[in-house]
Amino acid sequence: MKTHTLLMPLDMHLHLRDGVMLENIAPLTAYSFSGAIIMPNLVPPVTTKEDVIAYRERVMAAVPNDYFEPYMTLFYQNYDRAFLNDVAEEITAIKLYPAGITTNSEGGVSSFDIEEMRPTLEAMSELDIPLCVHGETDGFVMDREAEFMSIYELLAKNFPKLKIIMEHITTKEAVAMLDKYENLYATITVHHLLLTLDDVIGGMMMPHHFCKPIAKRPEDLDALLSVALEAHPKVMFGSDSAPHPREKKEACGCAAGVFTAPIALQLLCEIFEQFDKLDNLQDFVSDNAQRIYGICPEFKEVTLERRPFVVPEIYGNVVPLYAGETLNWAIESVE
Amino acid sequence: MKTHTLLMPLDMHLHLRDGVMLENIAPLTAYSFSGAIIMPNLVPPVTTKEDVIAYRERVMAAVPNDYFEPYMTLFYQNYDRAFLNDVAEEITAIKLYPAGITTNSEGGVSSFDIEEMRPTLEAMSELDIPLCVHGETDGFVMDREAEFMSIYELLAKNFPKLKIIMEHITTKEAVAMLDKYENLYATITVHHLLLTLDDVIGGMMMPHHFCKPIAKRPEDLDALLSVALEAHPKVMFGSDSAPHPREKKEACGCAAGVFTAPIALQLLCEIFEQFDKLDNLQDFVSDNAQRIYGICPEFKEVTLERRPFVVPEIYGNVVPLYAGETLNWAIESVE
Repeated sequence: MKTHTLLMPLDMHLHLRDGVMLENIAPLTAYSFSGAIIMPNLVPPVTTKEDVIAYRERVMAAVPNDYFEPYMTLFYQNYDRAFLNDVAEEITAIKLYPAGITTNSEGGVSSFDIEEMRPTLEAMSELDIPLCVHGETDGFVMDREAEFMSIYELLAKNFPKLKIIMEHITTKEAVAMLDKYENLYATITVHHLLLTLDDVIGGMMMPHHFCKPIAKRPEDLDALLSVALEAHPKVMFGSDSAPHPREKKEACGCAAGVFTAPIALQLLCEIFEQFDKLDNLQDFVSDNAQRIYGICPEFKEVTLERRPFVVPEIYGNVVPLYAGETLNWAIESVE
Repeated sequence: MKTHTLLMPLDMHLHLRDGVMLENIAPLTAYSFSGAIIMPNLVPPVTTKEDVIAYRERVMAAVPNDYFEPYMTLFYQNYDRAFLNDVAEEITAIKLYPAGITTNSEGGVSSFDIEEMRPTLEAMSELDIPLCVHGETDGFVMDREAEFMSIYELLAKNFPKLKIIMEHITTKEAVAMLDKYENLYATITVHHLLLTLDDVIGGMMMPHHFCKPIAKRPEDLDALLSVALEAHPKVMFGSDSAPHPREKKEACGCAAGVFTAPIALQLLCEIFEQFDKLDNLQDFVSDNAQRIYGICPEFKEVTLERRPFVVPEIYGNVVPLYAGETLNWAIESVE
């Protein structure tokens, strides 16, 4: 039977939440990934060294073995250099949210005043702390990411030594930025390699395909596939796997987020195989991230097998993408 | 207190369904409208003279008084002239659905072969039976209506004496067609004068704002408002009010349709007042339709008053648009 082995898979954008949810879902990622960038948009957000250390301890307590590294992040605010110097060894990146743009982002940045942000971003440049950005304006839903490109440009030009990660990109405009500025990088989710707006509202209304940024147009999907499948050296896999309890996803006024953590590698094998690019998956799902972030995850070898895998209807109280559907790849072993 | 009186309001695009649903909702439209074009997409669809007569009788039985005229329609198929001649006096229009494009449209047209359609459409032209069209392709959800413009052009050019109603238009492209072909007309819903895609998926996911065609971009909303507010002589109000039981609207994979029948006139007063165009509402909501369709509805005088009106949370088992919210206009009297 056909197999494919991935070494040290990394999820460079992951929501683990807290409390009971954290305990339910962290083991699912820890099983098949060597490490993950852990997003800081808790309630309240992670903004102090003590917060980071305590959250890391809660994550590790939720994970059943030692072979998973949570790369911790701070929630972006304007921090002073002394603080950043002190917290630097505890974090891998700082995550910037425009205020109110997505789940638990109310305390984010409300205006991109470069001079106000300069001390923080210059200190981050010098300390080599990457800036992860949720790049959306508060404009029309299909334009939010494209409109944000001018802010990426402003940041990239003003802080040429700052590594800026355009998180969970969804548009051809964001793809085009990768080759325009040396210090711009990107993560791409697995669901944005599969879905367009048609899958959200083109037939029935599908809450389990609803996320922010929303899946865009067919030509955007094509642009994302082109850089993911070639494992463009500035592109990394980041699932943006975002669990919500079933009752919040299937309610009137459902919350944004797609839960893919336990099926991401299987889906990636399926997509890369479909385009005959399986050989590039290792770069996309680990090697690019290791080089960009300068991280050395512990050894983990994940072997997938090409056989039918029925996605569980639910993990705890969280419904995954493609619940109940059959994928072509399954995880065979993890060593 | 400020009041506004409308004479013989008409809803030129209405779904009344059948059975218990029909009995629940027909009185809501009959209360405030003189008449309505009744859509034929039942299960099975209305395709025979007997179907039309029987459905009309069920509608009239559900309506509590004699002051409401259901303008009946047939579900478009390729019909022969003898049949059309026979059924003509029972119907006001024929409604064309591309196959599978919306609720109960499976039996619709699957290819627009003009020569196959010619006998039917020529007979309709001669009998002066208008063709109402759900104008969407099966393309990307935001492009479906704009892509359909070439089919409208084909129909308009090939059948210059056929009155073609572009139903529930949602795009600037459809608005532009009104002045391009003499025989193209349009209906516009009240929800498409209020919502964009932002209201469907821009914040949370809102099933009660989910309909087909989907609400589009801000510039499309502006184009629709411009022709509705001026009461462009080729534009009519048609609510496309489409009831679904609450459990189907709020379920995972919710059905498409917005229910506005009992609040449409109140909302229209609010919109037209907001733009200081109340004087044009009579044309939009009745006079244009009377002239275009050549119909003479029975007298009905509806007086609205500018006072707070809290939209009921539910009508029977159907949740209306803006349930629980407060509008600025209420129906004061109907005579």
